[in-house]
Amino acid sequence: MSAELNQGDPPALIALDWGTSSLRAYAMGADGAVLATRRSEHGVMHLPTGPNVHSPADAFELALQLLCGDWLAAHPQATLIACGMVGSAQGWREAPYRPLPSREADLADAVTLIERPGGQALHVVPGLLQAGELPNVMRGEETQIMGVLQSWSDEGRAPSRLLVGLPGTHTKWAWVEDGAVTRFETFMTGEVYAALSQHTILGRTMVLGGEHDEPAFARGLRVARSPLGVLGVLSTVFSVRTLGLTHQLTGGAQSDYLSGLLIGHEVAALAPALQDGTEVVLCGEPVLCMRYASALEAQGLPTPEIRSGVTPLGLWRIAQAAELV
Amino acid sequence: MSAELNQGDPPALIALDWGTSSLRAYAMGADGAVLATRRSEHGVMHLPTGPNVHSPADAFELALQLLCGDWLAAHPQATLIACGMVGSAQGWREAPYRPLPSREADLADAVTLIERPGGQALHVVPGLLQAGELPNVMRGEETQIMGVLQSWSDEGRAPSRLLVGLPGTHTKWAWVEDGAVTRFETFMTGEVYAALSQHTILGRTMVLGGEHDEPAFARGLRVARSPLGVLGVLSTVFSVRTLGLTHQLTGGAQSDYLSGLLIGHEVAALAPALQDGTEVVLCGEPVLCMRYASALEAQGLPTPEIRSGVTPLGLWRIAQAAELV
Repeated sequence: MSAELNQGDPPALIALDWGTSSLRAYAMGADGAVLATRRSEHGVMHLPTGPNVHSPADAFELALQLLCGDWLAAHPQATLIACGMVGSAQGWREAPYRPLPSREADLADAVTLIERPGGQALHVVPGLLQAGELPNVMRGEETQIMGVLQSWSDEGRAPSRLLVGLPGTHTKWAWVEDGAVTRFETFMTGEVYAALSQHTILGRTMVLGGEHDEPAFARGLRVARSPLGVLGVLSTVFSVRTLGLTHQLTGGAQSDYLSGLLIGHEVAALAPALQDGTEVVLCGEPVLCMRYASALEAQGLPTPEIRSGVTPLGLWRIAQAAELV
Repeated sequence: MSAELNQGDPPALIALDWGTSSLRAYAMGADGAVLATRRSEHGVMHLPTGPNVHSPADAFELALQLLCGDWLAAHPQATLIACGMVGSAQGWREAPYRPLPSREADLADAVTLIERPGGQALHVVPGLLQAGELPNVMRGEETQIMGVLQSWSDEGRAPSRLLVGLPGTHTKWAWVEDGAVTRFETFMTGEVYAALSQHTILGRTMVLGGEHDEPAFARGLRVARSPLGVLGVLSTVFSVRTLGLTHQLTGGAQSDYLSGLLIGHEVAALAPALQDGTEVVLCGEPVLCMRYASALEAQGLPTPEIRSGVTPLGLWRIAQAAELV
């Protein structure tokens, strides 16, 4: 994908995926096709500074100008929309969470508008809040889910019921019924993996940097779903160390074994909810999605589809619902 | 307890509790009473250096001399014994793990002897290894367990079956039958708590340093053992953040809530094994033991006894079994 727009091919939508650690911009044509894309490190937690930056809003505006100021100046008619942490309390402006159930029209209705002097306004997609005794939140993933639905409807498919898994630092699992998110759950698996590997005794014997050790990963999955896993993850993770001490697991295998344990416990906990034959699609970084697909298969569940890069599709779907394109 | 010995009260045993971060020495009389005790920061991972330290063995000897060289010189007839990480592969000399079942006589038979030029030899108590698909190890706790048994037999009690919980960085639960450790499990609860609090997003909103928030701790326990906890700890821990975001949990309450969640998941996982009425005793730092006692009570289990400071008693019991005192 090019970083530059062809002349004579004006974008209808400039779509931003603005997360904690990076900013991505997509120029999209009148048919929803991505014409050009760019990326910078200016995530919400890594904004640029400069002589004219006197407020957070200045820093957000500068990050936007640095990445695609030329697009905005050349195409003032293009709609500007964003999703992700840019709409959090630590973002440019808070786009309050939407309750469940929510479909694209609900997200579109709740878009927060940020006026930009001398330029087009920025439309910020809200996150989702699942109320309850243990509340749950997402911000950015709601747009990925809409992207999955858009990619399916582009293919003429319209499942009445779908479970979307979004592996990552905080993995989300969202149930979608007739196009609306009705429930979701969060697992901190990715961040727990990082914390255990880097900040506990388990990291001391790990040898990192080798190739992916599939048998070690599969062994972790097997332990988690077997009777050996019954005491739960707080107990089984200690086996990373004891299998090492007893020379049954090399240092190079320990990180993949730990990854298998954690993902295995997550999928085993979800398995009862997946027995009803609901179709599962995984959405995210392909290598990580493959690991979750292995875990689902090891649990005896059908092989899920894997999608990635669907955020611009989701922003397009929401912009369409808002009649912005 | 004094740090100095009275003249005319010679110790029969100089007992060392030599862990990762500290070294404790107990001078014990011919009747097993502790006559004096001292402590230094010279744990196995924090040994002293000096002009005469050319090897790990030199550093261990220096740590010992700095803490109780005067005791050793004045009482060369006293037996010297140690338990803990001093016997690990990173210790003074490795005291190989003993298999299960093990009672004090088995530990005594397997003591590793370290000759000390010009002084009495050091007897190092072995740790325990539970073989199996998920092996388990302990080093130091086996002596605490023997200390619990000694304190009970000093009181004329001899339970045929007992579960000893040893809360800590790595909490151990050991089943004891007729004086022998027959099985044990490890939960990394303490270290996971530290890693989550200090190295994940959960720590960002925690306000530390306040008083213990018992209702927040109890709330965590309740979530873990209720249907809300069914997805497991990788999922429930995210509620530390979402209850904060939705103003249902103050920053000051979040660390105790997390502590309740983690200990609650641990105790809930163990609960099926505790339904048979086995007597439970908790051994360790009293404040932490109180938390585990609350968790057991919340789970509907009987209130456990709490013991602490039993390591010298355990070393005494093992030294007696080895006919060293």
